[in-house]
Amino acid sequence: VTKDILNALGACVGAANVLSGHTDRSAYDLDAMGKYPGHSLAVVRPADTGEVSGVLKIASAHNLAVVPQGGNTGLTGASVPDASASQIVLSLARMNKIRDIDAKTRVARVEAGVVLQSLHEAAQMQDLIFPLFFGARGSAMIGGVLSTNAGGSNVLRYGNARALVLGIEVVLADGRIMNLMSELYKDNSGYDLRDLFIGAEGTLGVITGAVLKLYPRPRAYATALMSLNTLPDALDLLTELQDLTGNAVEAFEFMPANYFDDYARRFADRKMPLSAPGPVNILVEIGATSAALARTDKSGRAVVHTLLEEALSARLEAGRISDATIAQNESQRAALWHCRECAFELATMHGAMVDHDISVPPAAVETFLAKMPARLQPLAPDARVSVIAHLGDGNLHYSVQPKGCARGVPDALADKITEAVEDLVQSLAGSFSAEHGIGRSKRATMARRKDKTALEVMRTLKTALDPQCILNPGKLLP
Amino acid sequence: VTKDILNALGACVGAANVLSGHTDRSAYDLDAMGKYPGHSLAVVRPADTGEVSGVLKIASAHNLAVVPQGGNTGLTGASVPDASASQIVLSLARMNKIRDIDAKTRVARVEAGVVLQSLHEAAQMQDLIFPLFFGARGSAMIGGVLSTNAGGSNVLRYGNARALVLGIEVVLADGRIMNLMSELYKDNSGYDLRDLFIGAEGTLGVITGAVLKLYPRPRAYATALMSLNTLPDALDLLTELQDLTGNAVEAFEFMPANYFDDYARRFADRKMPLSAPGPVNILVEIGATSAALARTDKSGRAVVHTLLEEALSARLEAGRISDATIAQNESQRAALWHCRECAFELATMHGAMVDHDISVPPAAVETFLAKMPARLQPLAPDARVSVIAHLGDGNLHYSVQPKGCARGVPDALADKITEAVEDLVQSLAGSFSAEHGIGRSKRATMARRKDKTALEVMRTLKTALDPQCILNPGKLLP
Repeated sequence: VTKDILNALGACVGAANVLSGHTDRSAYDLDAMGKYPGHSLAVVRPADTGEVSGVLKIASAHNLAVVPQGGNTGLTGASVPDASASQIVLSLARMNKIRDIDAKTRVARVEAGVVLQSLHEAAQMQDLIFPLFFGARGSAMIGGVLSTNAGGSNVLRYGNARALVLGIEVVLADGRIMNLMSELYKDNSGYDLRDLFIGAEGTLGVITGAVLKLYPRPRAYATALMSLNTLPDALDLLTELQDLTGNAVEAFEFMPANYFDDYARRFADRKMPLSAPGPVNILVEIGATSAALARTDKSGRAVVHTLLEEALSARLEAGRISDATIAQNESQRAALWHCRECAFELATMHGAMVDHDISVPPAAVETFLAKMPARLQPLAPDARVSVIAHLGDGNLHYSVQPKGCARGVPDALADKITEAVEDLVQSLAGSFSAEHGIGRSKRATMARRKDKTALEVMRTLKTALDPQCILNPGKLLP
Repeated sequence: VTKDILNALGACVGAANVLSGHTDRSAYDLDAMGKYPGHSLAVVRPADTGEVSGVLKIASAHNLAVVPQGGNTGLTGASVPDASASQIVLSLARMNKIRDIDAKTRVARVEAGVVLQSLHEAAQMQDLIFPLFFGARGSAMIGGVLSTNAGGSNVLRYGNARALVLGIEVVLADGRIMNLMSELYKDNSGYDLRDLFIGAEGTLGVITGAVLKLYPRPRAYATALMSLNTLPDALDLLTELQDLTGNAVEAFEFMPANYFDDYARRFADRKMPLSAPGPVNILVEIGATSAALARTDKSGRAVVHTLLEEALSARLEAGRISDATIAQNESQRAALWHCRECAFELATMHGAMVDHDISVPPAAVETFLAKMPARLQPLAPDARVSVIAHLGDGNLHYSVQPKGCARGVPDALADKITEAVEDLVQSLAGSFSAEHGIGRSKRATMARRKDKTALEVMRTLKTALDPQCILNPGKLLP
């Protein structure tokens, strides 16, 4: 039977695009972080939507599980097969054409296998941006980006992946092709199917193409790093800056004091961006897309820069900011961003971690951070905590590093820590998954934490759209 | 049996809130435009979500069709019962509490029966806005607004209803309550159920509450009416103004020359806002939320006003605008808006009409308007056409008024005209329903025009979530 299946797949996509040898499969069977090793029957690499449809028809006929895969950079194990050697990986990597970028209407039509950074570069050629930025952008592909509703540091201004999509094309479990490749801003012709498939982690259908929104490239940036005393004061500053600039704040990233201890240790050769980091350190960036903010004022700088400088000066004088650095040029801006972007590297200095991608209402971040240590103490005495937060979205990356666990945190302890984190998140009306999704890693949490009726409805939809359960089984739904 | 059902409903919501007499029912059995007369078994008015759940349990047990109803102002017949006297109207009107407005987090928690204008007023008390504006705002209720994903003239800046929602509460067909009342900006915990129920016209569940986004009230407006020669030139101006102001254009409304002929005739006593309306007349409004746009410049006016004035002056000098009026004060601004808001009144001066709420990519509006007359000519020679467009969204309200049809357009002719309009819309990759929805009026069009697979998926979802088909049967799906 297996041979028949592989032959049928080969007839559909070409034998050279069915990879069943161990070496050929290895890059597809393991996620980029190396956390979820799997073993697929084969990797199938279709060239176009018709071939995706063909593969799914074969899969339906043989009750064969299909794991859609883009850049394989997700952090929850959603894009890798299990270890049974019975699932196929459906790699969209060959469908990497940017079909069209219309600079006038600011719309891009792309295939699912387009790498995010390739789209960034193509947009930039037209003086436009696709404003979704995160670390894995050099490998992540649009299909995966949409299937996980990816976030990042610019969600505050532009929304997450879902907010950047006008239309999609989807292949269903039985191979039917659904064309929702609209570029309309207003379309009330029935149920919102588009948003159901976005963020579904390939469990309801395979996204094969998308119509995406592009935005004008900011003509000037104002970027600063500063220390404040309290989180409420930081949120107050965010509101002030949003109102000053008409919601042009692109990033508002929180780093605690211990972050800079690590930074100083790891990058001893670099100039410290803050002389005395305080309890609440914020990297803020404002992008001037409007002429009113981008024009040069009498100080010789962009208006947006002056506005930020004035706002920070007033707070420095009032004692509400203890230290601040504003980037005066592109290389200083890059230095400030380096400080933020080495977060993962800094966290790993403290050994194995139990990490959490969570969100709470922004005003509750303070309570979360204040209450958490006492809850951790009995479980993991004196554990190190690494935090970085997209504060404007209330999205925390909260990593707990118990003492004496350099080589790995025992599962039982990790579970207890996660329970404690999620208990507090839930009590603050937050979410146990902010931007990374569910995949394999949070299925148990879904079962425990999600509104019971919502979970039942999700199962009902899954069964209705994929009755054989061949699409990415074992992911997202408990 | 009927008596048993009415008793059970009375036991659930109180006998006084089950209206079965003809007079009591009349306002609920007919839509606000008087186009879709129905006859319900009874109108049921629950006081809270628990009672809505109770009503749906009774309905499920008795296989009783339920028509959810808010302000009953929709234009497609989605909120009225059929004439069989076998359906119940589920009025959310008593659930009219604004539970909470948090000025700091800019979030409102409301029940489904809150009238849109009441929310506008409550937000204004906090110097905030809920930026969804359309004619029926004095009667339309939030539940209906969300269930139809309502639009209006400010969608360009703020998005349609869907874009303004953080969370919802839904009662399912069998009475289960699903709590998605999140106020999180990032939540990737499973399928996007929220957006599936928004815009579903009450066919998948009953929206009983919502968490809504509020926005800062613009501190200054710049509003102008102008005449241009071509639609591409108007779109070029829109892009320029968006880039100047950082996407602060709130409305960009198109009116053709004949619109002003009617206006002059109907309001002969008023000063004409344009001395010589051209082929393309645009009402533009920019809302200054940022301090940079709102501050007073050396001319003594808000920066946003000066920016608009300069942009229009340059185009007047270049001969690209033939005439323009900028509002110098609030009463002039109101006069310009009056000119736009009397659209329905002006259209009715020409007798019965066949109207269409359609969208195409904005760049295709010109082609649509250019090609349509020749297609109408054989069907309705020398028909009058009334158009008004939310040009920035590509959304046209296109009304055809055949000669000699003062008392009504025969169904057969109306169908032919609609087919001709929709043929052209489809060839331009547009939608047959932009912002009004489907309801009863466009079910046949859905069957003819919607992607076949998308339609099958919609039916699959409907069957899965409402297997008895008791929720608003005969609406949305063909």
